[in-house]
Amino acid sequence: MAAKDISLKGLLVHAVKDIYYAEKQILKTLPKLIEKAKHDELKSALEAHREETEDHVARLEEVFAHLDMKPASVKCEAIEGILKEGDEVLSEFGAGPAGDAGIIFAAQAVEHYEINRYGTMVEWATELKMAPVAKLLKKTLDEEHKADTKLTTLAVSGENREGIVKHAAKAA
Amino acid sequence: MAAKDISLKGLLVHAVKDIYYAEKQILKTLPKLIEKAKHDELKSALEAHREETEDHVARLEEVFAHLDMKPASVKCEAIEGILKEGDEVLSEFGAGPAGDAGIIFAAQAVEHYEINRYGTMVEWATELKMAPVAKLLKKTLDEEHKADTKLTTLAVSGENREGIVKHAAKAA
Repeated sequence: MAAKDISLKGLLVHAVKDIYYAEKQILKTLPKLIEKAKHDELKSALEAHREETEDHVARLEEVFAHLDMKPASVKCEAIEGILKEGDEVLSEFGAGPAGDAGIIFAAQAVEHYEINRYGTMVEWATELKMAPVAKLLKKTLDEEHKADTKLTTLAVSGENREGIVKHAAKAA
Repeated sequence: MAAKDISLKGLLVHAVKDIYYAEKQILKTLPKLIEKAKHDELKSALEAHREETEDHVARLEEVFAHLDMKPASVKCEAIEGILKEGDEVLSEFGAGPAGDAGIIFAAQAVEHYEINRYGTMVEWATELKMAPVAKLLKKTLDEEHKADTKLTTLAVSGENREGIVKHAAKAA
């Protein structure tokens, strides 16, 4: 076996394998959130994000092609922990008045992890002058940002509508 | 035992116990990152953040007092996963040319988790009209944001200095 590449490029490859694992776990988990969500717009936002997540997996497979590698995963301990915690919140609070607030809580922990990961990988790929890789990762980063913003919009009250959090606070 | 409070207030209490656990784990982990960091400014930024983290723990104890509760933890699976993944990155890449980039990668995953958690808790406490709790949590949120921005500044090249990522890319 070749010695492990511990350069910045090696670190990027490690991070791509890690997020590839994470995206596939997220893809398995989103249907559970969609099923439990009560608010219609939350349900459809999560469904739209599930479809986008399929694109994210496909885009990572393009990244592997640019790196002259077959797609491969390394277990992403962070996403395992984040999803496990989300499961706990859902099983304790999912059916109650704060259920949708809990779903957003769980989903945004995932989004923030991904935004951090993709943001850093774009930065590394750019410094390594791997423009096509940076471009693919940036496209997913932008979608993760939009998904996160959409969840915040649903949570927080707007000019003409009551947010999910205010609704839950009243139900308390 | 009283039935579990599954209202939004119950969810907030759960989240406070969760982040209390997380902050204490972070406090144990930061010295390892500080020890491994090679870049002086990164070392001192992490040391400053370790001191702030002590304040975050104390501030959560004030939050518990406002909630008429003794400080208590629930195991935070998310931070366990994030820190475990950070450990793996450090043991594989810590001593190499991308070591400091890996340290920032690990530390920012923690920061992004905390920013998400504190941001949501501030929102919940505000809707629940618990202004003193919201204020305490907001103070920590602002410090987490600053710590994250500082790490990004060190990673990315500025007008008059080479960022840690560019330095690592050259070493590759």
